[in-house]
Amino acid sequence: MSDPIKFYFDLSSPYGYFAAQKIDAIAADFDRDVVWKPIMLGAAMQVTGGQPLATIPLKGDYCKRDWERLAVYMDVPWTLPDPFPIATLAASRAFYWLTDDDEALAKNFAIAAYDKYFGQGADISDAAVVADLAAPLGVDREALLAAIQEPENKQRLKDETQAALDAGVFGSPFIIIDGEQFWGADRFWMIRRWLKSGGW
Amino acid sequence: MSDPIKFYFDLSSPYGYFAAQKIDAIAADFDRDVVWKPIMLGAAMQVTGGQPLATIPLKGDYCKRDWERLAVYMDVPWTLPDPFPIATLAASRAFYWLTDDDEALAKNFAIAAYDKYFGQGADISDAAVVADLAAPLGVDREALLAAIQEPENKQRLKDETQAALDAGVFGSPFIIIDGEQFWGADRFWMIRRWLKSGGW
Repeated sequence: MSDPIKFYFDLSSPYGYFAAQKIDAIAADFDRDVVWKPIMLGAAMQVTGGQPLATIPLKGDYCKRDWERLAVYMDVPWTLPDPFPIATLAASRAFYWLTDDDEALAKNFAIAAYDKYFGQGADISDAAVVADLAAPLGVDREALLAAIQEPENKQRLKDETQAALDAGVFGSPFIIIDGEQFWGADRFWMIRRWLKSGGW
Repeated sequence: MSDPIKFYFDLSSPYGYFAAQKIDAIAADFDRDVVWKPIMLGAAMQVTGGQPLATIPLKGDYCKRDWERLAVYMDVPWTLPDPFPIATLAASRAFYWLTDDDEALAKNFAIAAYDKYFGQGADISDAAVVADLAAPLGVDREALLAAIQEPENKQRLKDETQAALDAGVFGSPFIIIDGEQFWGADRFWMIRRWLKSGGW
């Protein structure tokens, strides 16, 4: 089987949320696995000079409308959260702590986090909320709360974010297939064609 | 017949070039006309804090690859021009001078300018090159060269760009259908759906 597809996303990114609803199903159509990699998009913005979408004049208002439309057209729940954006350090650290033991569990956790934030519009920045999201998946609350404070788990997220930057990742979602980069929730038609043809 | 679709673009914008290849055909499928409106994207960037794509770390390299892929996947000619980007004031002023008399002629001129710049990779910033592009369409070279120096034609481009900003335009391509905004060459699937359903 080919190498897994790499799916980079920020848990505070609406376009990452939309992509997360589809990426595994698309990959499965071509017998490919997907490795999920939450990153801190703020670190990429320091490199590119980018700003959070919602704060940009004209573009911010456009994006809010675009997210509403995408939700309807992609038939997924959508609530513009308040506050938005937020720091998703706790959830992202929890993800990496979970994924080494059980990749499927970690994905389900990320999906639950995205659903809570963008599906239901609830703030997920607090560690207690993150623990609440993981508990129904069978994760021990206290173990999770301790893990996300451990230096090695904090460092892991920094290292993963730096590795993503080194691989050219500057946005969310960002998908890399056998070295080929695709940015955005609107590149799925190209991803399908790339996977079908094996390249050009 | 419904109001025409508004198609905003910068003649130095690769994604505008790609959109220009498709927009009229898509609109025609739904019995809609398209009004073309070249703008100076630099004025929008002053509002949004944006930078020319090719100059942005990581994103610039990604976009160059994305343009190559899009050209193959959309089956249109593509050459990354050098210099890029350029000032397209002369061509944009010529467009508005032409369009009041003959909208179809002005579109053909814009298509010729895009083809020269992004299809063939030739610099179109010089007024003489702009006149060369218009001449085969039956436009008098000397009249065009005089027109693009006239204050009223310079002002027209400024006014059109400001009107675009006032309508929320911040990128290229930017399409407005009955007040609904669509940004980017990758929103055509949403545009088709919007036109088909008459909205949501």
